[in-house]
Amino acid sequence: MSVIVQKYGGSSVATTEKIKKVAETVIKRQKKGHKMVVVVSAMGDTTDDLISLANGISKKPDKRELDALLSTGEMISSALLAMAIKDMGYEAISYTAYQIGMKTSGQYGKSLIEDLEVEKINKSLKEDKIVIIAGFQGINEIGDITTLGRGGSDTTAVAIAVKLDGICEIYTDVDGIYSTDPRKYSDAKKLKEIDYEEMLELASLGAQVMHSRSIELGQKYGVPIYVGLSCSEIEGTVIREVNNMNMESKPVTGLATSDEDIAVTIKGIEQNINILSNIFEVIGSRKINIDMISQTAPIDGKVNVSFTIPKDDTYECMSIIKQFTEEKNIFIDKDITKFSVVGIGMKTTSGVAAKMFKIFSDNNIDVKLITTSEIRITCAIKQEDKGKAINLIANKFNL
Amino acid sequence: MSVIVQKYGGSSVATTEKIKKVAETVIKRQKKGHKMVVVVSAMGDTTDDLISLANGISKKPDKRELDALLSTGEMISSALLAMAIKDMGYEAISYTAYQIGMKTSGQYGKSLIEDLEVEKINKSLKEDKIVIIAGFQGINEIGDITTLGRGGSDTTAVAIAVKLDGICEIYTDVDGIYSTDPRKYSDAKKLKEIDYEEMLELASLGAQVMHSRSIELGQKYGVPIYVGLSCSEIEGTVIREVNNMNMESKPVTGLATSDEDIAVTIKGIEQNINILSNIFEVIGSRKINIDMISQTAPIDGKVNVSFTIPKDDTYECMSIIKQFTEEKNIFIDKDITKFSVVGIGMKTTSGVAAKMFKIFSDNNIDVKLITTSEIRITCAIKQEDKGKAINLIANKFNL
Repeated sequence: MSVIVQKYGGSSVATTEKIKKVAETVIKRQKKGHKMVVVVSAMGDTTDDLISLANGISKKPDKRELDALLSTGEMISSALLAMAIKDMGYEAISYTAYQIGMKTSGQYGKSLIEDLEVEKINKSLKEDKIVIIAGFQGINEIGDITTLGRGGSDTTAVAIAVKLDGICEIYTDVDGIYSTDPRKYSDAKKLKEIDYEEMLELASLGAQVMHSRSIELGQKYGVPIYVGLSCSEIEGTVIREVNNMNMESKPVTGLATSDEDIAVTIKGIEQNINILSNIFEVIGSRKINIDMISQTAPIDGKVNVSFTIPKDDTYECMSIIKQFTEEKNIFIDKDITKFSVVGIGMKTTSGVAAKMFKIFSDNNIDVKLITTSEIRITCAIKQEDKGKAINLIANKFNL
Repeated sequence: MSVIVQKYGGSSVATTEKIKKVAETVIKRQKKGHKMVVVVSAMGDTTDDLISLANGISKKPDKRELDALLSTGEMISSALLAMAIKDMGYEAISYTAYQIGMKTSGQYGKSLIEDLEVEKINKSLKEDKIVIIAGFQGINEIGDITTLGRGGSDTTAVAIAVKLDGICEIYTDVDGIYSTDPRKYSDAKKLKEIDYEEMLELASLGAQVMHSRSIELGQKYGVPIYVGLSCSEIEGTVIREVNNMNMESKPVTGLATSDEDIAVTIKGIEQNINILSNIFEVIGSRKINIDMISQTAPIDGKVNVSFTIPKDDTYECMSIIKQFTEEKNIFIDKDITKFSVVGIGMKTTSGVAAKMFKIFSDNNIDVKLITTSEIRITCAIKQEDKGKAINLIANKFNL
């Protein structure tokens, strides 16, 4: 009998009515002969409400305490879902991170799952209980509560599926993965399946459907991840290793944009001093995601470097950089949209970048920064050009 | 350097502004050279809001899950208070029940503290941190979250004071213990000190200032408990062993009323069968508080028995009694107020009961049930007579 690990996002458990609906759906699935583990996010806007509460106390809330605070959101929804299932006459039990020994490491607010104990879960499953797990949270080596970062419940679900050798299903408020955001481009196509690599690029580029670490984890352990609409029969998308690349496969499968970053440029850095690697090392050790690093050729032994960082980390990042260089050499551009195209097919099809830049140039879209990987091309463009760029590129590559 | 364990009730931490005020008060106290441990209740109406949420899911929410749900209220307030203190530049750390090994036993919703580990608390105090503890919660022998019952944070605070050999201060929205409820009798007098026994009687009789188990615990280990208004200089009341009873001491120190119970009467029980002790044993094993048990003399070998139970436990209690006797023999009276006078002085002063009954009789107040102990007299009267009775008795005994 297979174990199914389902995850329901915040919008799927936003009200008591929706929680009851999830309970019914989970029970129906159990009746088909599966052992059910359900990971839940916090109800609706609970996490944002708790953050507002913290901001009412402090402009820069202590990170340990913020994690302790935020973890309560998932405890509430998991207890309520277990109650709902029991009220319908089926056995259920909720567990917090503490109770299943969900061990984490790293920073508060963006900790990483190290391991978890499956004894309690397995015992409860053997007793035919539906096991409900509070997602998003863990306990670090000194016994503090930590959280996994926004969307972290996805990673909780995949980690549990890995440990239980189960199937993983992520239920959310979208009915699958699209080639590009259907809210931004109405002709966007839903994918039946997508490779982990492609999904990872899309996720890291602002396709907010999934927590990217959950995809990495699924890829590492070969666990396919189904993504679909909560409590619905509509078929979603499976994220798995896509091997059957054929001649007809498209070079570009997805397009994503993100307005969540700012561009930082540092001017006139001495090339022979190791300032850059020092800056990046310190920023990296704070688990701040640096992206789109680009360096111009040296002039008089000095180089200019640009990169992007998440808006939220601006303050912390600036205070690090200022330790290494004068403030007058630091330039910030807040008006950027990261615009990316992704496709496993790019490995074998050349000229994608050239086509893209030609389209931008023909349509007066300025490109501020460019970075590429084997399967993606990302440009930073002005935010006002975003809509135009999506239409042009999606049309060109038939997304 | 002495350890002070303070407890702040829900109304004292109802808003972020009030939490900041508590933070200031605690810091000020620490600056006077004390090691500070602070136990907090859930913010304002949080517990009631969570109960409403549970009732939206189920008419009879599963008790294990309800406890898991309710425990989040105190986690929220403790994390916020720690944040507030850190924001003011002082060191603080919040702990949940899990983190300080707060072991409990007994039923969900009304569990009892067995023990707690003080290592983490002591380590943090040694580092000059203000330690914030989520009250009201514990972990039972199978690792489930349990709660201590309404007002249970008082007991959390006293238990920690006992283990740390500290001083215990309970801060709430009243400025001390009064001879009777000042909201019901405007001439009520505030007591400078009160004996544990008197306070216990008052607490069990509906003076809702304190969780009665906290007073028992203080008495058992000889820890005085100060009760006063949050963040105020107004002097409150100390609950301790009052030995210096002198000739002038009043026979009655306090008066309390409660509308939280119903009276149950069982008619025609065979005297020679052990039905009654069986009924009481089962009810007791469910941790339901039976009070005011009174039995009339047998007629034809049959007796009538009356007692009171908390309104909230009516359903559970009735289903137990029905296992032992026919429904037609059970009578319920919902229109009762428990009216009690309490005083250590009653041990040495006789005639208190006689005076009280005379006043009731002279003023047409029907007495439905009577029970007495060494230091208290309790009558069940009609709810409509409550106001009149309070005025008459408080006036008579100069309360």
